Amino acid sequence: MSVALPLGTTLGQISDVVMGTVSPQERSLPVAGLAPLNRAQSGDIGFCASAKAARDLSSFRGSALLLSESLESLAPDGVPRVLVVDAYLGYAKISQWIAQARTASRPLEAAAIHPSALIDPSASIGIGVVLGPGVVIGARTRIGAGTALRANVVVQDDCEIGERCLVHPGTVIGADGFGFAPSPQGWVKIEQLGRVRIGDDVEIGANCAIDRGALEDTVIGRGTKLDNLIQVAHNVVIGEDCAIAGCVGIAGSAVIGNRVQVGGGAGILGHLSICDDVIISSMTLVASSIHEPGFYTGVYPLAPHTQWEKSAAALRHLPDLRRRLRALEQNQSKDS
Amino acid sequence: MSVALPLGTTLGQISDVVMGTVSPQERSLPVAGLAPLNRAQSGDIGFCASAKAARDLSSFRGSALLLSESLESLAPDGVPRVLVVDAYLGYAKISQWIAQARTASRPLEAAAIHPSALIDPSASIGIGVVLGPGVVIGARTRIGAGTALRANVVVQDDCEIGERCLVHPGTVIGADGFGFAPSPQGWVKIEQLGRVRIGDDVEIGANCAIDRGALEDTVIGRGTKLDNLIQVAHNVVIGEDCAIAGCVGIAGSAVIGNRVQVGGGAGILGHLSICDDVIISSMTLVASSIHEPGFYTGVYPLAPHTQWEKSAAALRHLPDLRRRLRALEQNQSKDS
Amino acid sequence: MSVALPLGTTLGQISDVVMGTVSPQERSLPVAGLAPLNRAQSGDIGFCASAKAARDLSSFRGSALLLSESLESLAPDGVPRVLVVDAYLGYAKISQWIAQARTASRPLEAAAIHPSALIDPSASIGIGVVLGPGVVIGARTRIGAGTALRANVVVQDDCEIGERCLVHPGTVIGADGFGFAPSPQGWVKIEQLGRVRIGDDVEIGANCAIDRGALEDTVIGRGTKLDNLIQVAHNVVIGEDCAIAGCVGIAGSAVIGNRVQVGGGAGILGHLSICDDVIISSMTLVASSIHEPGFYTGVYPLAPHTQWEKSAAALRHLPDLRRRLRALEQNQSKDS
Repeated sequence: MSVALPLGTTLGQISDVVMGTVSPQERSLPVAGLAPLNRAQSGDIGFCASAKAARDLSSFRGSALLLSESLESLAPDGVPRVLVVDAYLGYAKISQWIAQARTASRPLEAAAIHPSALIDPSASIGIGVVLGPGVVIGARTRIGAGTALRANVVVQDDCEIGERCLVHPGTVIGADGFGFAPSPQGWVKIEQLGRVRIGDDVEIGANCAIDRGALEDTVIGRGTKLDNLIQVAHNVVIGEDCAIAGCVGIAGSAVIGNRVQVGGGAGILGHLSICDDVIISSMTLVASSIHEPGFYTGVYPLAPHTQWEKSAAALRHLPDLRRRLRALEQNQSKDS
Repeated sequence: MSVALPLGTTLGQISDVVMGTVSPQERSLPVAGLAPLNRAQSGDIGFCASAKAARDLSSFRGSALLLSESLESLAPDGVPRVLVVDAYLGYAKISQWIAQARTASRPLEAAAIHPSALIDPSASIGIGVVLGPGVVIGARTRIGAGTALRANVVVQDDCEIGERCLVHPGTVIGADGFGFAPSPQGWVKIEQLGRVRIGDDVEIGANCAIDRGALEDTVIGRGTKLDNLIQVAHNVVIGEDCAIAGCVGIAGSAVIGNRVQVGGGAGILGHLSICDDVIISSMTLVASSIHEPGFYTGVYPLAPHTQWEKSAAALRHLPDLRRRLRALEQNQSKDS
Repeated sequence: MSVALPLGTTLGQISDVVMGTVSPQERSLPVAGLAPLNRAQSGDIGFCASAKAARDLSSFRGSALLLSESLESLAPDGVPRVLVVDAYLGYAKISQWIAQARTASRPLEAAAIHPSALIDPSASIGIGVVLGPGVVIGARTRIGAGTALRANVVVQDDCEIGERCLVHPGTVIGADGFGFAPSPQGWVKIEQLGRVRIGDDVEIGANCAIDRGALEDTVIGRGTKLDNLIQVAHNVVIGEDCAIAGCVGIAGSAVIGNRVQVGGGAGILGHLSICDDVIISSMTLVASSIHEPGFYTGVYPLAPHTQWEKSAAALRHLPDLRRRLRALEQNQSKDS
């Protein structure tokens, strides 16, 4: 199964969209659909962006290839091709080109502000902003030009969202951070008086929660992308061009650098910092600051349950094992 | 505390609902409420479906029992009873019977489509569909007969939901998958051009996020049940009759078989497959494909914090321990 | 950056708000903003509530201090100060005082019930209840006096919420619990016939899901605070004055005591109990009952990925290591 390209698309047009190269005699070749390499059928252009994907080239059944230049030697002879530095980036550009063609043919769906969206009169809404049904924009909140908030997104008072951002349905921006002082009478609420400030070109998935700051602001830097169901607590500062996968939780006052990638379901404790260019594995807990770029992991390896039971039970005895091993070593060195 | 049965319910009616057996002289016995075994009071029927629950039979204070046949020998003499192959399934049927009676007495609550629901004119809505307040249905989306979408559910463009499905409030179906190509200028959006297709008899909990596919579709098979706050990423394919507990995250392009059960908070990485009849423990990360049916676990066992600190510290030295143990073994074998 | 205090605020007023002490000659000193210690600038009052924070006292640049009495000896001479038993609690009180002043100056934002909120005619709404846009209140549901439900909160039929509660946007209360009986034809729905009952002074974050009970009720006790994206399954009973951080999942029929604190992303399995005064670390799974107050942890420590790979691989051999160590010990004791 493939996604349809605009009617009449040629390989030359594809090459132009991706700023690639194609042989002159192949420019006029028609292509009907875009597909991953292993799903392409006759009429489709398949893209190949990695040596791993290239394993599927020998069984390729499509009509043309979008190929990273470095992989050209792996492609079967005789298949028309568009060459480009990075075929994955090329695929992204074609996907945008298809989406634009779809939108152009469905002008009603691009309607700017749905009549059921509620905008506080003191809010500031930029040019070309798209607000879906049920969106709520609080007092004094500013939404930058070209930003789209999908259905039922809530942005509370005094927040700022940059330009060309995209926020998916159900996400809540600017709810109170989780702040309480203990007292003999129970928890006493700390009113959350800060804001949320989100930079340009940020994308946030569905049903996330980005809390406002307590005294300072919660900040998400330019170009950072968040997946679904992510919790960003009060006073968190996330840098630029980060990518944070689904179900991640970031606790209060954590400071995250630029180009940090966080795997799904990971957790980041509060009041710590993570430097630039760190990669955190899925479901790993970051419990103290990370000062060196690199790839970090902390997850219990899966095993058949009975095998896990044995290793988990042994784990409790690990300090004891260490002690006994040391005793053996000392005994042995005494003997020798 | 028990849940009230319809006024005038007899043990004979209960037996008919669950397709069980009851002695003729007990058919006319009135029962007023349904309760778990250890909570039943005078007038209640309590259900007992497992040997573990049967431990509470000796202190049973209710008036009648719904009992799995295999457990009959454990029941105290003289307590009226309905016997059935599986009393848990019997309980499910009684719960449905109660719910139907409630709905019948409250016709207004069963109103089909709330006036505040927004349905794109190009969408297709089956017979008997129930849409709660604030529901949003996108362009060309199809909702099968008898399906109910509760308040504020959002189903975006071009999705398909089968018949007799139930989706709880706040869930978002068809938001963009998390797809970006790296480039020297930062992340470049990959438009998500696929759809979400959900089979018949699927239930999805509250505040979930089921993303649309990138080029292919995200698929949830017939009869599969999802709990709350679950993330299903783009291109994921989930088979039939699966049960996935709350807070689970499933990453992009994972393929999950039939009858797979996933415990709460578990994670499944992308681009892997899980075969039929696998059970994953809560908070376990599946990081590679599973080819054998079975029960898999990977979770760090809880301990008092100071004890955990010692075993976690020792864990870092585990490779070193192994090495030292091997050295000792070699020394010893040299000695002997 | 600081948060502005009401115009004309004096140190004497601050002292009165926090029920602290200030020297008579400093009462009339004006203060313009409230800030954490390390962010305070000229004109600000900074608060210092812990010995750890007190490290920043030497570089303090603000104009006055809100100080816990026990820390007074650490404060630099000559800085005007308000002394109080617990400066963190004092900070909470000032935050509330600022929030009240803001609300008083913006009466329109305090509007009680938004016209787009949908309230079933059989529901009962207390005095002074605030309902945001898109809120849905089901049949026979009762909302206590002074409670606020923010935008798009859904409370389904037959639920009870106490007085002075606060529920943040997108949270769903009273959706069906996840209950199905296995059958040869697949999962059979168990209708969820219980309710949700929430005590007074409870706060619940954004995009949570609090399920209704199956036969019994799901209960959240007075004064308990929940952060965002939390799953509370059917029949769960949570005590009073608990604090549960974001992304926590609590499975069905778990019973949690009073003053329990649960770290972000932790999981609690079903059908177990946790006694009073337990603290659970972030991302820890509670898989069996806890009967002793204390601090419990179970999380795999993070490491650079290559180092983790080695320790994780060794972990699988841990039972084998134990066996070999025992063999060595026995050999050695034979030798000696």
